[in-house]
Amino acid sequence: MKKKLAIDAMGGDFAPKSVVEGCLLARAEFTDTEFILFGDETKIRPLISDMTNMTIVHTTEKIDSGESDPVKAIRSKKKASLVLAATAVKNGEADALISAGNTGALLASGIFTVGRIKQVDRPGLMSTMPTLDGKGFDMLDLGANAENTARHLHNFAVLGSFYAANVRGIERPTVGLLNNGSEASKGAPLQKEAYELLAADETINFIGNVEARELMNGVADVVVVDGFTGNAVLKSIEGTASSLMKQLKTAITEGGILSKIGALLMKKSLYRLKDSLDYEKAGGAVLFGLKAPVIKSHGSSKADAIFATLKQTHKMLETDVVGKLVRHYQEDK
Amino acid sequence: MKKKLAIDAMGGDFAPKSVVEGCLLARAEFTDTEFILFGDETKIRPLISDMTNMTIVHTTEKIDSGESDPVKAIRSKKKASLVLAATAVKNGEADALISAGNTGALLASGIFTVGRIKQVDRPGLMSTMPTLDGKGFDMLDLGANAENTARHLHNFAVLGSFYAANVRGIERPTVGLLNNGSEASKGAPLQKEAYELLAADETINFIGNVEARELMNGVADVVVVDGFTGNAVLKSIEGTASSLMKQLKTAITEGGILSKIGALLMKKSLYRLKDSLDYEKAGGAVLFGLKAPVIKSHGSSKADAIFATLKQTHKMLETDVVGKLVRHYQEDK
Repeated sequence: MKKKLAIDAMGGDFAPKSVVEGCLLARAEFTDTEFILFGDETKIRPLISDMTNMTIVHTTEKIDSGESDPVKAIRSKKKASLVLAATAVKNGEADALISAGNTGALLASGIFTVGRIKQVDRPGLMSTMPTLDGKGFDMLDLGANAENTARHLHNFAVLGSFYAANVRGIERPTVGLLNNGSEASKGAPLQKEAYELLAADETINFIGNVEARELMNGVADVVVVDGFTGNAVLKSIEGTASSLMKQLKTAITEGGILSKIGALLMKKSLYRLKDSLDYEKAGGAVLFGLKAPVIKSHGSSKADAIFATLKQTHKMLETDVVGKLVRHYQEDK
Repeated sequence: MKKKLAIDAMGGDFAPKSVVEGCLLARAEFTDTEFILFGDETKIRPLISDMTNMTIVHTTEKIDSGESDPVKAIRSKKKASLVLAATAVKNGEADALISAGNTGALLASGIFTVGRIKQVDRPGLMSTMPTLDGKGFDMLDLGANAENTARHLHNFAVLGSFYAANVRGIERPTVGLLNNGSEASKGAPLQKEAYELLAADETINFIGNVEARELMNGVADVVVVDGFTGNAVLKSIEGTASSLMKQLKTAITEGGILSKIGALLMKKSLYRLKDSLDYEKAGGAVLFGLKAPVIKSHGSSKADAIFATLKQTHKMLETDVVGKLVRHYQEDK
């Protein structure tokens, strides 16, 4: 049976062009997949010369990335490209939902339209983040929740382990709890309680507390954290990396002719540096714990980043990670 | 009257050498200051040829940086260099406490020995962090507290504003609340309540929520955050910056001969990049809200970093920022 992807073609800074181009790249790689594009047909159709495995569901409504009340937006704009795509997944007409648009609206569509796996109180937003050794690590929650309990953190560990084992092929993935020190006694009551729950669960390969300073060194395969702190950590890493790359550019430009020649000679190395920091190579952020894969590609995604997100989605469907998760919770009962 | 600094000469990875060398650099700049070094005289004395404005208080006991229970350590090791230095400040024999040793032990010494300003429930650990424009920003709490209330966050805003105005000379410093979005409605109940308190206080130049991604762009002069998140953000920024510098080195080394020549030509620019990231230029982390300046220099501090911390301490004493703070709270009553 074909894998069917419901794609919000109007989401993201370069939509629909980069979204469609990403789909064309993915179609060339995956012949078992159908790409259902939700959005303005007059803008999408001219970008596609051959419609093999492509379907367009026409709608002119869309949710802006600046929309401040995303829950209200998905309720009032019933024909928005994102809302129609989410509904297609809900109705079983598609297997996964992908958007590079408004994050809050995608999270709300995921939770309210696609729906949670019954036993998952709080789905977590999870990304595979870069490490120096290139292996990466999965961190969640990155901000789907403003507040979490210790039980949520424990559940994030189960979710992250499932993803790392199935989608990334890591055997017995290690799980770390983000904390303000490595000793077991560290943290606020939330972290102390979560530590106990994680240490008591033998199905998880818990290695204890990890500190934010060690994340890029690949200290754990999965890192669990409450949504507020996880969001701040993610944005700190992104902000620092992008500031440093800007600084490096300025240093080269203002460093005079020698610097410029030097940079030219280093071009390959500098590109490799930029590449190793590229989050988007690993795909988008998964809202994990729902009945189907729901994936957010970065708002500034070009075709390559969309392609990476579609590859990731394809892997999630191929490995049936969501189905396995559902069965895990059913057996658990 | 001379400014008297109580210095834990045995704290830090390169103690006592780098601590003493830092003091010698500071002595050459500040003739109005006396440096009281607490530690092993047999190790300290040989490092100093001229004892002008230098005093050694001999003790062989010290607190290790790896000490896992710092509160117990300062209670049991009553003759540790740090404990004696803190006691000197408490007894009025010195005006400020400086250490590059165990952070937890310094925090505990500050709170229990030097003591809080009565109206400050929770002192905050604060650093001046780097921004792209070189101006920097003060962030607190960086982890003196595992949990904070909205009232604590409001108090951090008062403390940070006082420091930025007096020590850094910024008129009406802007204050931002670290949050997971810029809208007023964002965050967990803690941030929402803190937002209200900050917005209602006209003595503070509150500019609203700021996101971690924007910190290095100099979005605010002072950023307030609970200690758990602040600690994670600080370590994320430090970890990312140091990982990137490592990556850059690897890229140069593995990039072959052209890369190496390029790097040589870019040497000055690369140093400037490294320099602009150097936290330690701005000094150490202040545990602010105590009856005297208590400052933590980085554990890996060399003489230059110690010197920067001593300059910062000198500035705090010269501007009488702690005295002004005490008077502010007294008038407030």
